[in-house]
Amino acid sequence: MHIFHSIADLRSYLRLQRQQGKTVGFVPTMGALHEGHLSLIEASKAQNDLSVCSIFVNPIQFNNPDDLARYPRTLEADCAMLAPAGCDAVFAPSAEEMYGKANASNGLEPSNAYNKPILKFDFGPLEHVMEGQFRPGHFNGVGIVVSKLFNIVQPDRTYFGQKDLQQVAVVRRMMIDLGFQIELHSCPTLRESDGLAMSSRNRNLMAEERAIAPHIFKGLTLAKTLLLSGHTPAEVKREIAAHFEQQPSFRLEYFEIVDAHSLQTIEAMADAGQTALCIAAHLGKVRLIDNVVF
Amino acid sequence: MHIFHSIADLRSYLRLQRQQGKTVGFVPTMGALHEGHLSLIEASKAQNDLSVCSIFVNPIQFNNPDDLARYPRTLEADCAMLAPAGCDAVFAPSAEEMYGKANASNGLEPSNAYNKPILKFDFGPLEHVMEGQFRPGHFNGVGIVVSKLFNIVQPDRTYFGQKDLQQVAVVRRMMIDLGFQIELHSCPTLRESDGLAMSSRNRNLMAEERAIAPHIFKGLTLAKTLLLSGHTPAEVKREIAAHFEQQPSFRLEYFEIVDAHSLQTIEAMADAGQTALCIAAHLGKVRLIDNVVF
Repeated sequence: MHIFHSIADLRSYLRLQRQQGKTVGFVPTMGALHEGHLSLIEASKAQNDLSVCSIFVNPIQFNNPDDLARYPRTLEADCAMLAPAGCDAVFAPSAEEMYGKANASNGLEPSNAYNKPILKFDFGPLEHVMEGQFRPGHFNGVGIVVSKLFNIVQPDRTYFGQKDLQQVAVVRRMMIDLGFQIELHSCPTLRESDGLAMSSRNRNLMAEERAIAPHIFKGLTLAKTLLLSGHTPAEVKREIAAHFEQQPSFRLEYFEIVDAHSLQTIEAMADAGQTALCIAAHLGKVRLIDNVVF
Repeated sequence: MHIFHSIADLRSYLRLQRQQGKTVGFVPTMGALHEGHLSLIEASKAQNDLSVCSIFVNPIQFNNPDDLARYPRTLEADCAMLAPAGCDAVFAPSAEEMYGKANASNGLEPSNAYNKPILKFDFGPLEHVMEGQFRPGHFNGVGIVVSKLFNIVQPDRTYFGQKDLQQVAVVRRMMIDLGFQIELHSCPTLRESDGLAMSSRNRNLMAEERAIAPHIFKGLTLAKTLLLSGHTPAEVKREIAAHFEQQPSFRLEYFEIVDAHSLQTIEAMADAGQTALCIAAHLGKVRLIDNVVF
């Protein structure tokens, strides 16, 4: 498995592979890999000659500096998982490599080692809800870095986890609006045996928090059951609020019943094509998200 | 010369050419071609195996519906110029082909045949001046369509005219921020023998307007001379205002003395790397722009 830290080195490698007619699958990640990520690599390997995984904790998609500082960085362990999974190349650039070195003339504080992009993305109704509402600027950062990674890697196919449902919807729309000639594949969320969605942030949970963390997926399962048995969205929202009041360690940030593609709130089940139930909740210092789609 | 109206047909053609190892140069235009455009094709031919010209009057970059309606559409004449110039392929899509067909569920008025992008670009300080200030939303439309064309054509090099100086600055920044792996070439403005910058909009000038149109370039030349002989930017701005008062058929929209890359106003000549003098002026129903860089 090749490990690249520079854009130029990765590009030279990919150019040679392309000349041999190889197709390229791409899995963008922020590292701290778990089995969920490996399932994306597996999906890529099944459809492409070559699988590339990027590991980049993208500073411009964090609205909370503490969250950025706490985000686990485990490149060696990540590579030790990727190699046996059959990943062909890892791209692990620094922020300076991705965005260029900061220079005096751009008016940045000296604490920033990298050059912030000037261009800003606004995804309108797709980002004025849920994650976008609670993490202002998050999807601008996601859109910019994913575009940049797509342009650097130029894959045939790309693989995202459904756990970040809104991210998938935003990236899907971005690919339409900007004409990226890449197939987007959204892969199912992997769960621990007790139902907790796999997440890099799970490792920041204290033992007693980890023990009650499956309460989120239990809430989603309850909500789905209630909706399918004829309860209205308003009734289900009240039930979920009560469900989280039973576990006061949680602070529920949002629970939304939305159309899985437009991400807009569903008032009555008949309005939806595909329904997504989405939760964000704080547990100790950790913010967790999860969703189910049906 | 090949003429393509569909993205899929162009992509099939380009895929075959790429497999033969050919490099691709790309000239995006809105048609109504003149010698200035042909000089971009020439520049492309000198550096690439294959030259592609797109002709697309992009509705989302027009803030003024009358300007969009009046914009000349002359595909046959354009192709008759491009073929002898050695252009290899023309890409002339409809708005529906570029943006997709409008559908009932996206809330558009039925008068729009195409699907407007949801994603919006904001170039911050690069667009809050000059064209961006007087044509709100213009550079969003330019950024989206140029990104989309780049992703469709995937050229090695692209060629823009310096006449649209702010467009070049915006596209250059976009290419950095989104990591486009394409060389950008800005080519000198071509002028008629009396100094008028070549422009597709010139053909909308009435004869008497065409006769006085070179007043714009005379103003730029005067301004450059005054600045180089030691006059301050403030003095020169007063002189240019007076210069246009001599020709009351013009309505001067802006005259700016800016840094050619940051596009920010220069208060003193010592502050500038490269200086750009930029004018927009209305003459009858036509809005003309021009610039000189030194």
